[in-house]
Amino acid sequence: MLPSNRKWFTEVCKEAGYAASWTIIDRLARVTSDYQTIEVFQTEHWGKLMVIDGFVMLTSRDNFLYHEMLSHPTLFSHPAPKRVLIIGGGDCGTLSEVLKHSEPVDVTQVEIDEEVTRLARQHFPELCERNDDPRARLLFDDGLAHIRQAAPESLDVIIVDSTDPIGPAEGLFGPQFVTDCYRALAPGGILVQQSESPLLHRHLIDGIRANMASAGFDDVQTLGFPQPCYPSGWWSATQGCKRSKLSAPGDERFKASGVETRYYNPGVHAGALAMILS
Amino acid sequence: MLPSNRKWFTEVCKEAGYAASWTIIDRLARVTSDYQTIEVFQTEHWGKLMVIDGFVMLTSRDNFLYHEMLSHPTLFSHPAPKRVLIIGGGDCGTLSEVLKHSEPVDVTQVEIDEEVTRLARQHFPELCERNDDPRARLLFDDGLAHIRQAAPESLDVIIVDSTDPIGPAEGLFGPQFVTDCYRALAPGGILVQQSESPLLHRHLIDGIRANMASAGFDDVQTLGFPQPCYPSGWWSATQGCKRSKLSAPGDERFKASGVETRYYNPGVHAGALAMILS
Repeated sequence: MLPSNRKWFTEVCKEAGYAASWTIIDRLARVTSDYQTIEVFQTEHWGKLMVIDGFVMLTSRDNFLYHEMLSHPTLFSHPAPKRVLIIGGGDCGTLSEVLKHSEPVDVTQVEIDEEVTRLARQHFPELCERNDDPRARLLFDDGLAHIRQAAPESLDVIIVDSTDPIGPAEGLFGPQFVTDCYRALAPGGILVQQSESPLLHRHLIDGIRANMASAGFDDVQTLGFPQPCYPSGWWSATQGCKRSKLSAPGDERFKASGVETRYYNPGVHAGALAMILS
Repeated sequence: MLPSNRKWFTEVCKEAGYAASWTIIDRLARVTSDYQTIEVFQTEHWGKLMVIDGFVMLTSRDNFLYHEMLSHPTLFSHPAPKRVLIIGGGDCGTLSEVLKHSEPVDVTQVEIDEEVTRLARQHFPELCERNDDPRARLLFDDGLAHIRQAAPESLDVIIVDSTDPIGPAEGLFGPQFVTDCYRALAPGGILVQQSESPLLHRHLIDGIRANMASAGFDDVQTLGFPQPCYPSGWWSATQGCKRSKLSAPGDERFKASGVETRYYNPGVHAGALAMILS
């Protein structure tokens, strides 16, 4: 039983018979867009909490883990990540981490729902501080169509920072999308997708890995990392590399980059790659 | 709100304004011992769940993470871990992992509450399969007194597999206990303690690290790892090494050991050590 002397927000993970709850002080926003219902809560201990269609997207307290691990392993695995595309990522946390790197010259974010970004600017301004970087371009459009129309070999890195594989993000977990990404990547290019929980969603990770292998990616790796606000607190990202191999950078490259992080470092990166899904 | 069409067990982590819940089919046991109240539930999706005084101890589904990470990093960091002491650990999961190694000749477990082990034998028999190993000695006694009376330099590894630092385990987080452990360890010996969540319990981790440094340990390291059934899903173990340095083993030692794991490997070990608490 949840103590009734507090207000709680609860996310139920039905397929795992599991739920996580946070004590909340107030609901700060509730917006129904063309795509989904977005809510923002003020919690007691986790800062602000954004929820889409009942599923936790992020909290102020722990989003650094997810955003760092969705961006830095991929950017540091590429020798020269100049052209970066983010699909989804409307809270701009991933964009902010990507823009810490000096190599990118064009960082395009294609989020389908402008309301997510509007609410992020208002309630998570710390994630949107780099939105005005001249290298950043924020589009509000369909990521599936965008990648279908992208010129072949025009991108170095594609980051899929999506919601769960139901609702608007469903197509981002299908084989056609991954094939389109492969085509749009230059040789040496890397696709990375958030790929849910290694404990609870192995079938989904296996599906993403199979899609990447079928699309032609030569090296496919799944990284594990903590993400407390998501079901099980253990999350993953799956990377595919086109005509090259994935590996963690040396300490020298990381230090020379000047990229400041709270969780990511080359040792953590190598450890995340060492996770064996058996 | 938790859906009322299911029965739920909920653990509330009050200091973090957070709760985790599991759907349960039935309560299989409820025993009040001299020390605490122990319950075992049959869950829908996580196998069996053991709870002590309302706090989750383990589930069938995810305990491999904690038990592997509390034992293998320490045993593989020691050149010859012959004499091993486990304090707490009544479910025998840590003992089982330790006994996968060939080096130990004496593995003593000192659990204060025999009821925990009795219920583990009944409901988690897979964790107790090695209890009859001739190298294993199960004592039901006070760990604090045991370590106080241990001969100086008589142990190579001490593993503190305790409940949270309230109730019977409180003394295991105090400086006197850590000093007693230091004295009982031979040069090169290693103490490892479960040290709660890197996200939620930093003050506690800092306290354990300070205790170890004050006691004289020359190398103190905190390892991070996923543990979904504990608050935040992100957990830690803190190691101190007496007159030596801690490091992950090479692949050769791991392979030659024949130790089979689901999560632990030398790469994961090095990655866990790379976590920087800033």
